[in-house]
Amino acid sequence: MNAMNLLLEALPGMVVTDRDELRQYQTDRSGHVSPGVPMAAVHPRSVEDVQAVCRIAHETGTPVVTRGAGTGLAGGGIAGNGEIVLSMDSMRGILEISQANRLAVVQPGILNGELNTELAAYGLWWPPDPASKDISTVGGNIAMNAGGLLCAKYGVTREAVLGLKVVLADGRLISVGHRTVKGVTGYDICALIIGSEGTLGIIVECTLKLQPVPTGPTATIGAFFSGIEEAADAAAAITAAGLVPAIMELLDRRTLECVSAYTGQSLLSQGSSYLLIQCDGAAALEEAARVADIIEAAGAEASITTDPDETSRLVDIRRQAFPALESMGMMLVEDVAVPRDRVTDVFRKVLELEDRFGIMIPTACHAGDGNLHPTFVYQGDTVPDDIWKAAGELFAYALELGGTLSGEHGIGLLKRQWIGDELGADLLGIQQQIKAVLDPRKILNPGKIFPPTI
Amino acid sequence: MNAMNLLLEALPGMVVTDRDELRQYQTDRSGHVSPGVPMAAVHPRSVEDVQAVCRIAHETGTPVVTRGAGTGLAGGGIAGNGEIVLSMDSMRGILEISQANRLAVVQPGILNGELNTELAAYGLWWPPDPASKDISTVGGNIAMNAGGLLCAKYGVTREAVLGLKVVLADGRLISVGHRTVKGVTGYDICALIIGSEGTLGIIVECTLKLQPVPTGPTATIGAFFSGIEEAADAAAAITAAGLVPAIMELLDRRTLECVSAYTGQSLLSQGSSYLLIQCDGAAALEEAARVADIIEAAGAEASITTDPDETSRLVDIRRQAFPALESMGMMLVEDVAVPRDRVTDVFRKVLELEDRFGIMIPTACHAGDGNLHPTFVYQGDTVPDDIWKAAGELFAYALELGGTLSGEHGIGLLKRQWIGDELGADLLGIQQQIKAVLDPRKILNPGKIFPPTI
Repeated sequence: MNAMNLLLEALPGMVVTDRDELRQYQTDRSGHVSPGVPMAAVHPRSVEDVQAVCRIAHETGTPVVTRGAGTGLAGGGIAGNGEIVLSMDSMRGILEISQANRLAVVQPGILNGELNTELAAYGLWWPPDPASKDISTVGGNIAMNAGGLLCAKYGVTREAVLGLKVVLADGRLISVGHRTVKGVTGYDICALIIGSEGTLGIIVECTLKLQPVPTGPTATIGAFFSGIEEAADAAAAITAAGLVPAIMELLDRRTLECVSAYTGQSLLSQGSSYLLIQCDGAAALEEAARVADIIEAAGAEASITTDPDETSRLVDIRRQAFPALESMGMMLVEDVAVPRDRVTDVFRKVLELEDRFGIMIPTACHAGDGNLHPTFVYQGDTVPDDIWKAAGELFAYALELGGTLSGEHGIGLLKRQWIGDELGADLLGIQQQIKAVLDPRKILNPGKIFPPTI
Repeated sequence: MNAMNLLLEALPGMVVTDRDELRQYQTDRSGHVSPGVPMAAVHPRSVEDVQAVCRIAHETGTPVVTRGAGTGLAGGGIAGNGEIVLSMDSMRGILEISQANRLAVVQPGILNGELNTELAAYGLWWPPDPASKDISTVGGNIAMNAGGLLCAKYGVTREAVLGLKVVLADGRLISVGHRTVKGVTGYDICALIIGSEGTLGIIVECTLKLQPVPTGPTATIGAFFSGIEEAADAAAAITAAGLVPAIMELLDRRTLECVSAYTGQSLLSQGSSYLLIQCDGAAALEEAARVADIIEAAGAEASITTDPDETSRLVDIRRQAFPALESMGMMLVEDVAVPRDRVTDVFRKVLELEDRFGIMIPTACHAGDGNLHPTFVYQGDTVPDDIWKAAGELFAYALELGGTLSGEHGIGLLKRQWIGDELGADLLGIQQQIKAVLDPRKILNPGKIFPPTI
């Protein structure tokens, strides 16, 4: 029997073969579209179902593309011709919440926001905070090692996962990591799976490390500066002073233009860059006062608010950036990260690329951790060549500064051609050999992360 | 030429062949002694020297045992017959300290305490805090993914490493991880190397994630309880209340007996278990007040001190436990970790094993993270069989509770026979295949972590 018939037989009622319905899996939030319609989508309801899919795929050599909510920005969850989509949307249960152990055990398809709503009743919180959190899944966050606004203070997803159950390419089930806070028995395969973009195994159960919800007021500052360098310098001074705000976001002039046009505000009359700071926890007010002093010494106004409406207004200037940019046309959202003291260099490079290529690259930056999102705006269905050329120059520059191609969005399809520039041939080769250990028949999300030619 | 001659030729002045001098490398702080004297010890001065050693070892199939300060408790750094010791004690430089990027770049042989003394001048701090920190190396801490007293609040060593330079078994040099806070390009090989006990590669340069030194007073509570269950329940209540003390340590009656005998104090007149709590950071005093309320509700006295002398007195009760136990005879220091709400079960198991085997097992516990150190005291040169039998029962029980063989000391030689009980055959096989990718000739610390028969 072929793969399709085996799937239909083994997973009754869980297999979608309608081509119109399958087309949704040809794309994700990157806007990239695969050339062909996938063979089928399976919506497993249990670990055993996932194992059955993998056994069939392994035996028949059929590719499997695991899919969360499809919010990825690098094409990592895109499926095409002849591929099985493994959609985790029916496995979204909370299996356990333990206050005593400060952990939750969940299925991978639950939305991050949905989980956090449940946890709030326990005074607990799962910190990963990608912008997509209300619409992205916990399993997807883990598969991508998602970041977000809060990483400088609360860490990335890797730090918020204790253990995983993983179905291997051949259908075997393993448990990696621990239910305990610490554990050093053997190699850290849990960390290896986190961020592996569905290429090493299928995450079917997640033991999550929770934190207590921060207590006390949240103190917010929204400061406009005359230029991006002044704002970046203020952010650097805040870090150098040993302060760790929960949120420290930087928007450039071009982003403020877009947000102004989108919302009808006249933000540019207040300055040409915007620094948003939020301090939380028991010492929020003292910390915010020290932040305000630094901002004022840098020549900007800084008033601290704890008022919910004013807080929303200040935070929304940042939150509106993505929809504002989306309204301008298609976007290639880039994601380089550099050492924190090189952020200003990247903003300068962005201006130079805008000039030279005659394009718009509004750029927001998680200034607490040096992760920038230069967003290349374009018209049409596919990313034009000159946009890729400009993006390629940006990547090379980030690497030259000691940075990385991707702070939090992953490599997927869209950045695989540059991965060797960052890793070098030796490390790239090792990663591919490790992939071969876990997925010898190369059926798990093939073509993602690594260029197909090597 | 044989390996020895090749080493002498390639690394003039760096190779020790004197058998008396080499004997020190046959053991570590576990007390275990290898049956034979190693072939040679090399003290490399540069990355290139390490590469030369690995090339020679790889070509000649000679085992290499990388060695920090020899403070390991699981025999991971022990060398024997025919093996090359690669001692990192001459590579101990600080290459960079960056306040703006909150990182340091160091060579692996620097002592943890030595580094932190330097960092203090910058208001910065590298959090890994094993009890050995004044005498153990940064490279050793990373190779073992060391823990310590502060992990519940400040994380384990893995969370404090941004990137590593690693010499592979065949002498090639790779860089893993990032200089940036975030980075998701490819698989997390940096996390794979951390805790791999010298079996996957040689760490030759470490880019460390630093934190600002906590500000404000440190508030300390030392509370005596009538029994270990009452103390463990109080610790659990502190965690369940969403509090995260920097230190939360629990000592049982047997440990207090030993400390009393060693120091001349009469601790048992105050209670039969001891809970030490330390809160730091801007909200230390408020947090300590909430902790004190919980302790008093649990029936013990809790006075908060910020006085340095009284703080030392309270902390020393914990710090004296190790030397006090050492004075009783030889020790097998065990290291199981369990979910935090099962700590009391382990203390009960320890009492049962003491009774049944007629032995002493004083036990201290990092109560914030469920990591216990049942310490089997014995007389003589080697661990008696009945001690191993009792320890084996303890390991099995910890696994039954959802715990792990090793919270922070590693597997090394001493626990390799149980590793399959925790990992299972599939995961154990995957780990060995990954080892084969990085070290195909099996020259890096052979016989450690994995039993030699499989």
